[in-house]
Amino acid sequence: MCGIAGIIGTGDCAREVAVALQALQHRGQDSSGIGSVCGEEFPLVHKLGLVGQSYGAEDMAHLPGPLAIGHVRYPTVGRGLLRDAQPFFHRQPGLLMAHNGNFINVREMQEVLREDSIHLLSQCDVEPAMCLFALEMMRRRRRDHTLEDALAALDATFTRAAGAFSILVALKLDGIPTLMAVRDPNGIRPLVWGQGNGSFTVASESVALDAVGAHLEGDVAPGEAVFFRRDQEPIRRTWRRGEAAPCIFEFIYFARPDSTMNGRSVYGMRQDLGRELARAWAQKKLSADLVVPIPDTARPSAAAVAEELHIPFREGFIKNRYSGRTFIMASPGERQNALRLKLNPIASEFRDRRVLVVDDSIVRGTTLSRTIHLIREQGPREIHLAIYSPPVLYPCYYGIDMSTREELAAPRFVESATEGFLSEAEQRRLEHNLAARLGLDSLTYLPGEALRRVHPGGCCAACFEGRYPLPVSDERRRWIEEDRRCVVQRELLF
Amino acid sequence: MCGIAGIIGTGDCAREVAVALQALQHRGQDSSGIGSVCGEEFPLVHKLGLVGQSYGAEDMAHLPGPLAIGHVRYPTVGRGLLRDAQPFFHRQPGLLMAHNGNFINVREMQEVLREDSIHLLSQCDVEPAMCLFALEMMRRRRRDHTLEDALAALDATFTRAAGAFSILVALKLDGIPTLMAVRDPNGIRPLVWGQGNGSFTVASESVALDAVGAHLEGDVAPGEAVFFRRDQEPIRRTWRRGEAAPCIFEFIYFARPDSTMNGRSVYGMRQDLGRELARAWAQKKLSADLVVPIPDTARPSAAAVAEELHIPFREGFIKNRYSGRTFIMASPGERQNALRLKLNPIASEFRDRRVLVVDDSIVRGTTLSRTIHLIREQGPREIHLAIYSPPVLYPCYYGIDMSTREELAAPRFVESATEGFLSEAEQRRLEHNLAARLGLDSLTYLPGEALRRVHPGGCCAACFEGRYPLPVSDERRRWIEEDRRCVVQRELLF
Amino acid sequence: MCGIAGIIGTGDCAREVAVALQALQHRGQDSSGIGSVCGEEFPLVHKLGLVGQSYGAEDMAHLPGPLAIGHVRYPTVGRGLLRDAQPFFHRQPGLLMAHNGNFINVREMQEVLREDSIHLLSQCDVEPAMCLFALEMMRRRRRDHTLEDALAALDATFTRAAGAFSILVALKLDGIPTLMAVRDPNGIRPLVWGQGNGSFTVASESVALDAVGAHLEGDVAPGEAVFFRRDQEPIRRTWRRGEAAPCIFEFIYFARPDSTMNGRSVYGMRQDLGRELARAWAQKKLSADLVVPIPDTARPSAAAVAEELHIPFREGFIKNRYSGRTFIMASPGERQNALRLKLNPIASEFRDRRVLVVDDSIVRGTTLSRTIHLIREQGPREIHLAIYSPPVLYPCYYGIDMSTREELAAPRFVESATEGFLSEAEQRRLEHNLAARLGLDSLTYLPGEALRRVHPGGCCAACFEGRYPLPVSDERRRWIEEDRRCVVQRELLF
Amino acid sequence: MCGIAGIIGTGDCAREVAVALQALQHRGQDSSGIGSVCGEEFPLVHKLGLVGQSYGAEDMAHLPGPLAIGHVRYPTVGRGLLRDAQPFFHRQPGLLMAHNGNFINVREMQEVLREDSIHLLSQCDVEPAMCLFALEMMRRRRRDHTLEDALAALDATFTRAAGAFSILVALKLDGIPTLMAVRDPNGIRPLVWGQGNGSFTVASESVALDAVGAHLEGDVAPGEAVFFRRDQEPIRRTWRRGEAAPCIFEFIYFARPDSTMNGRSVYGMRQDLGRELARAWAQKKLSADLVVPIPDTARPSAAAVAEELHIPFREGFIKNRYSGRTFIMASPGERQNALRLKLNPIASEFRDRRVLVVDDSIVRGTTLSRTIHLIREQGPREIHLAIYSPPVLYPCYYGIDMSTREELAAPRFVESATEGFLSEAEQRRLEHNLAARLGLDSLTYLPGEALRRVHPGGCCAACFEGRYPLPVSDERRRWIEEDRRCVVQRELLF
Repeated sequence: MCGIAGIIGTGDCAREVAVALQALQHRGQDSSGIGSVCGEEFPLVHKLGLVGQSYGAEDMAHLPGPLAIGHVRYPTVGRGLLRDAQPFFHRQPGLLMAHNGNFINVREMQEVLREDSIHLLSQCDVEPAMCLFALEMMRRRRRDHTLEDALAALDATFTRAAGAFSILVALKLDGIPTLMAVRDPNGIRPLVWGQGNGSFTVASESVALDAVGAHLEGDVAPGEAVFFRRDQEPIRRTWRRGEAAPCIFEFIYFARPDSTMNGRSVYGMRQDLGRELARAWAQKKLSADLVVPIPDTARPSAAAVAEELHIPFREGFIKNRYSGRTFIMASPGERQNALRLKLNPIASEFRDRRVLVVDDSIVRGTTLSRTIHLIREQGPREIHLAIYSPPVLYPCYYGIDMSTREELAAPRFVESATEGFLSEAEQRRLEHNLAARLGLDSLTYLPGEALRRVHPGGCCAACFEGRYPLPVSDERRRWIEEDRRCVVQRELLF
Repeated sequence: MCGIAGIIGTGDCAREVAVALQALQHRGQDSSGIGSVCGEEFPLVHKLGLVGQSYGAEDMAHLPGPLAIGHVRYPTVGRGLLRDAQPFFHRQPGLLMAHNGNFINVREMQEVLREDSIHLLSQCDVEPAMCLFALEMMRRRRRDHTLEDALAALDATFTRAAGAFSILVALKLDGIPTLMAVRDPNGIRPLVWGQGNGSFTVASESVALDAVGAHLEGDVAPGEAVFFRRDQEPIRRTWRRGEAAPCIFEFIYFARPDSTMNGRSVYGMRQDLGRELARAWAQKKLSADLVVPIPDTARPSAAAVAEELHIPFREGFIKNRYSGRTFIMASPGERQNALRLKLNPIASEFRDRRVLVVDDSIVRGTTLSRTIHLIREQGPREIHLAIYSPPVLYPCYYGIDMSTREELAAPRFVESATEGFLSEAEQRRLEHNLAARLGLDSLTYLPGEALRRVHPGGCCAACFEGRYPLPVSDERRRWIEEDRRCVVQRELLF
Repeated sequence: MCGIAGIIGTGDCAREVAVALQALQHRGQDSSGIGSVCGEEFPLVHKLGLVGQSYGAEDMAHLPGPLAIGHVRYPTVGRGLLRDAQPFFHRQPGLLMAHNGNFINVREMQEVLREDSIHLLSQCDVEPAMCLFALEMMRRRRRDHTLEDALAALDATFTRAAGAFSILVALKLDGIPTLMAVRDPNGIRPLVWGQGNGSFTVASESVALDAVGAHLEGDVAPGEAVFFRRDQEPIRRTWRRGEAAPCIFEFIYFARPDSTMNGRSVYGMRQDLGRELARAWAQKKLSADLVVPIPDTARPSAAAVAEELHIPFREGFIKNRYSGRTFIMASPGERQNALRLKLNPIASEFRDRRVLVVDDSIVRGTTLSRTIHLIREQGPREIHLAIYSPPVLYPCYYGIDMSTREELAAPRFVESATEGFLSEAEQRRLEHNLAARLGLDSLTYLPGEALRRVHPGGCCAACFEGRYPLPVSDERRRWIEEDRRCVVQRELLF
Repeated sequence: MCGIAGIIGTGDCAREVAVALQALQHRGQDSSGIGSVCGEEFPLVHKLGLVGQSYGAEDMAHLPGPLAIGHVRYPTVGRGLLRDAQPFFHRQPGLLMAHNGNFINVREMQEVLREDSIHLLSQCDVEPAMCLFALEMMRRRRRDHTLEDALAALDATFTRAAGAFSILVALKLDGIPTLMAVRDPNGIRPLVWGQGNGSFTVASESVALDAVGAHLEGDVAPGEAVFFRRDQEPIRRTWRRGEAAPCIFEFIYFARPDSTMNGRSVYGMRQDLGRELARAWAQKKLSADLVVPIPDTARPSAAAVAEELHIPFREGFIKNRYSGRTFIMASPGERQNALRLKLNPIASEFRDRRVLVVDDSIVRGTTLSRTIHLIREQGPREIHLAIYSPPVLYPCYYGIDMSTREELAAPRFVESATEGFLSEAEQRRLEHNLAARLGLDSLTYLPGEALRRVHPGGCCAACFEGRYPLPVSDERRRWIEEDRRCVVQRELLF
């Protein structure tokens, strides 16, 4: 997962891009980059660490110009080096590119590039895509590229580069600085745009627009390319038709709740999921004294659960906002205390109570297991866990950090693996077994049909039901799993 | 405001102090320091910035020994330099000292020291206190100081050094490494202790104990000095009797909700204040569709308000946890956007609704004013603001960052300034006028009596009622106000 | 001026390149870079500051592979940013390039590149040359480039890119990692190669070979390209015939004395120049008590002058080896003292003596003027200055940091400016007038014919006689002078 | 070895102290510090690394005031940490102290301090001396200390603190900022003073005075204390009479040649030693074609040897001024190449020649041995080595980095160890045996009597003859040798 933002406007835009990236910092804290277009130059700055702590006035002075794009990186693939930081620059025809998503056939793309003897500087999967696009541009015309060239090149490129992607390109088309925003045909990863103060802003999430004072106009549609220029209406073109399948996991976990994507409020959807979860839980005829969210993500859903069930809502955990990456490594035996450094329970809320804990999902289950242990120490009467999403049973090949089945907790407790949501009986069995393993009094997942009710239109819920909008061949699957090995695990980082 | 932590135990304690300081990081992010006692040496390391990002293995190697104390600094007075960072070291008789609080007669202390030709390295007010204590120790005995010497020196020192303070001293008494924890006679600033894993831990808040796996035993009592040594029971001595007056503002705003201080849960007290606030609001016969907290502080109270009033509780604002200090300064006209970077409203919750916004207090009112403007932009039908504390009418001289009356918002709307809580009529008038100024449909403060009901025993509520447990003469007041000028304002920093 | 080094061998070569660069550090202290070839990857690291203080074990771990090239930069053109640091990387066909020298038609090259819509990342003049070369390679063949392709591309490139250059390219040819070393047809800038320990080393100066334990085999000849591969004899090809014209100023000032270039010892040539200078001085029938060099450069010549004239040789100045770039800027009025910080006279050697001071050349004359003032303060009877090179009358367009006539001291004292060395009478007049201006008792330049005697074969002495081996049109001259404006002056840096 | 400088004048002096420290940087590159006196404050800044690269405008802004002292550190004892950096500050009576030298009874001093329960922050030996001095000041008077108090305290302090020391103290005496410069009764370590531009400057060497534009007035005499104040004549007092015994090794190796100390020019003395060495060598009836110095130290002596013997003087070695401390560590087998990185021979000067190499001294012999190996590789006919000092046979306890006999090369080849210089026969035998071991054709040390002729007055030549001006008891010797263990060896650092 990563975040991208691009702004084209009247003043120097790099500083505003930096602000937008701060609003997207939850999508990646590893490194960041900002590049601008200024005359014939494409100045570019990359930094390790948080945006707010790494860019100064001097950096901004090196990034003049009315068009800038930026990126925050979550290290899904790559080795945490500055050279893997986006945006990337391509000399010919002169462009900057940044993306959020994941290509599923990097090795094939590399092979194509090898045909033209093109070598890569980084491990980042957008670099081959950028090179393919640049090649296609040059194949069409040597110079003075037009918007139509870009569209044609786009189509040619993404015939070869398959995956889930939202891409920003800063370049000159028809002699004019142009911010090009592209979303894959299924629209798996989000991308929204807006305007304000004489600028257009495109970003992974609408919160970045809020932060720079732009009004949300809507999504870049699946398969659409939008071209933004100063003092012109955006030019919107569909470059490839596909079935809309925006990632449901963005709504469940990854996006900020105050974002609106695919026309829906993340916050609102989490509330709806909470209400559905409440109904599922009610069917079990269990009782609880309190509803407690695992902060911060589960709060809106948990509040809805509480409201629906008429059970008091309580902040049972306090999250330490300074518990980020630290240089003082805990010894393995101290992991349990390390958890308390970031997530501390309010003992009084738990003691002798029957608590209904609400969380977003169960992926690997390692942190959850330690959290339940922590709750148990507070002396509750019963611990019930309700998850406002179905069981995660399949890996994600489109950019969410769970790309192998082995790392997932739930599949170990499910016998068959037929496509589609689990049957009610299967889900009951899974809940029962996993609850036993985790030491819970009960575990309730959201039923698949409830998810469908909340998000009835097409979306990618492959991680829940195994139906991939963009097929991944066995060979590609193997490649992705091999690359997975060098990935720093989410648990180790946060 | 600052935070302190000290640990004496079996292993090298500096690393554990670093973990404890991370749990106290909300009390100060400016700089930090850790010092240890190892044989006859007192190694000491100071750092700028956050604890988690500044200490590495090499620093820990320089801080061996079974006794360590540390400090995180909020820059109330001083110029943000490393030399103002605590703990401080005194060669004779060899000790480290760190404190949380504020001395009200620094200039008098400096004068006393000048008599003995003692010069100071820093602007920090604990340095003269430490020098006085060291002088008193040496006046008593040249070497081999005993616990009784320390007690006598303590008494002599704090006859001269007046203020609100919680102090940790690491030194040798009776030839044994000793962690001495001292609280002022009114116990204005918090200090708790606990044990676990063969160590004793003392800290500003119990969350630091949670983070290192220690069990809370209780407070260092007002006027008490507790001496901790390895493998011994703590030696508790009252060095000065005073009327207990713990700072009520710690409960309202400053402390973490998961802390327990003065025997009470901060979280629980915030709930109680919320319930009282609900009753005060109910008397106004107003209606609201939703209760929304200003995160993170107001959440527990707002939840209690909602529960009490049977109005739905909603997370109307999303706080960006990456919006801390930044090097990219916004231009003045962009402050409003800068606010959205850290506090973004969920438009759907506000639109056409009558919202009851709950916040902890109104001090200067600048951020609040911008926040209300932001809510107004979301198109609510009505905005009601409820504050779970009484109006702040008087400055604090004991360490909370509001030391002059001029900077406070409420007093401008109050005519007379007689000591004690406002009368109901006065408070109504203030609420009415301030609401008009802030563009609110209504404003409700917590009545003073309600505060007393929630915290019936003695506490320092000087900021609300002007009764100072430790009198501050006019001259001292002037000094404090002069020193105030060089203080970096809270608003500029966060 | 810059320095380059490349090594191809059996082990990981980046560390050895770092050592070689330290030996070349006198050629540039601004920034440095090292890149390697490892499989299909071209990892690359750039650093600001001195080599010895900027690369660590982690950097070396990022630079594996049996082929590496590096660069140290003296900021002739460019803005001192990391993005101007060499080597540069080109994705297609995958290569690293570093150079020492100066291209005289950068704007024309940029225009050619613009035809193909190629944009540049930096201000550095090797980047367009690299892009042209890469274009030519790809024009010849899409992949599996051969050594013959490289030769043909070389020829095509440097038909368009004119200048003085010594270039290292790291790439794969015929499928084999190849280190390609190229020198311009006039061989203006130096480039030598050698072998040892199973490696081939190419570098600007032979001292780099000494530092890594390689034996000097000789020069890359003017117009030659040498291809180095593991376990093969070097493949030497003349890609363009030209008249050899190695820069004489390398011998006089820039190169380290312990280097051998163009088959001649720099040290030996400085001795020879000293002997010729002694003869020129002897003709003036002047007397001196001592010969004193301006250290470090003038030492070998001054020793030869002393030996030839049978006048005692003395170290009259002590150079402070820690007087490099400093962050504490002196006020303008303190420049004279600042000089003493780096060059301190031994008063006893000067007092009441007739001293013959020997220096390498007079370029701008600013430091020299201050140095003479400093000598005068020591109370000498007479100050005679002898310069072991002819008057610098013409700018250098080939990479020595004196690219405009306006900045030169000598031309102001010469009336006509006909090509060729000055006549004896003209030189006498110049010496007389400049001596008067500098407050010297006499000034003696090396006669042009004497220079020719010492270096009889062809060399570029354009700065002395105005005959440019590679013609520079008026337009190009204007461009170079315009670019000159943004150059940080040598005086300010050292 | 370390270097100190202090300035009292009209403007802010810290910047000038920084310049002075750069001129003394050869005396220590490990860390540095500058402190000033400004009103009642004593601001203090410490830095790791070179002065020129570590202080910026912000540091200078923190160091206002008309009196400042500074220090550069060579890590003889201590662990290379910032807390060992000088100057040190003492709160009571408010003073800064920096020194150059070595105390021989640190443990005794610590014991005295322990009586008063004084603990130390650092491993640095000046800290206990400072504490003793401060104690003595306070014993005399509580405040308003006078110059007489300081003198009395000085006398009392250095009855207890024995050693070789030159000390600067910045404090207020008689209410006036005073720079106090003190030299030990034997004047073992150097200390000079001068004036210019309304300031007084005191420093380890006169080159620091040159760098700030001050004129040398002379030495602080052995056993003298000089008090400098603005607009007053310096007050000179002898606080203890002793036999003058300035360190001869400063003249031979450590000081810069352009310094004048103890009334003698270092450069001039090195010339004289060279002339004596020439005579000693002439007696051996050997022949040589060239005289070559090991740069930089041996140059003046070698030039004198050449002049005296009428043998040509040649710069056979080129020293790389960028070969300082490096982060890229060579493997053990590459030490020989590492030497070439810093000291490269001019092969042509050595090949087939009989060279007389001149060096300052033989201490451990490790670098010398590698240097001889390097010369041998150049193919000389004969290698003769002449050392312009007698054999180093005894350790130094006064601050030169050779404090144990075991680490010295020469004693291994000497049978008896009677005090005084070796007899002629003994020295011949040593020369013969050591030459054989080092692979030399001959080795010539300076005879002890020749040294005495050059420096007839009293000086400390304990390292040559074993007569210690300040006796070191066996117990103290053992302590010093124990402390020696934690010292980073000179060879490893440079």
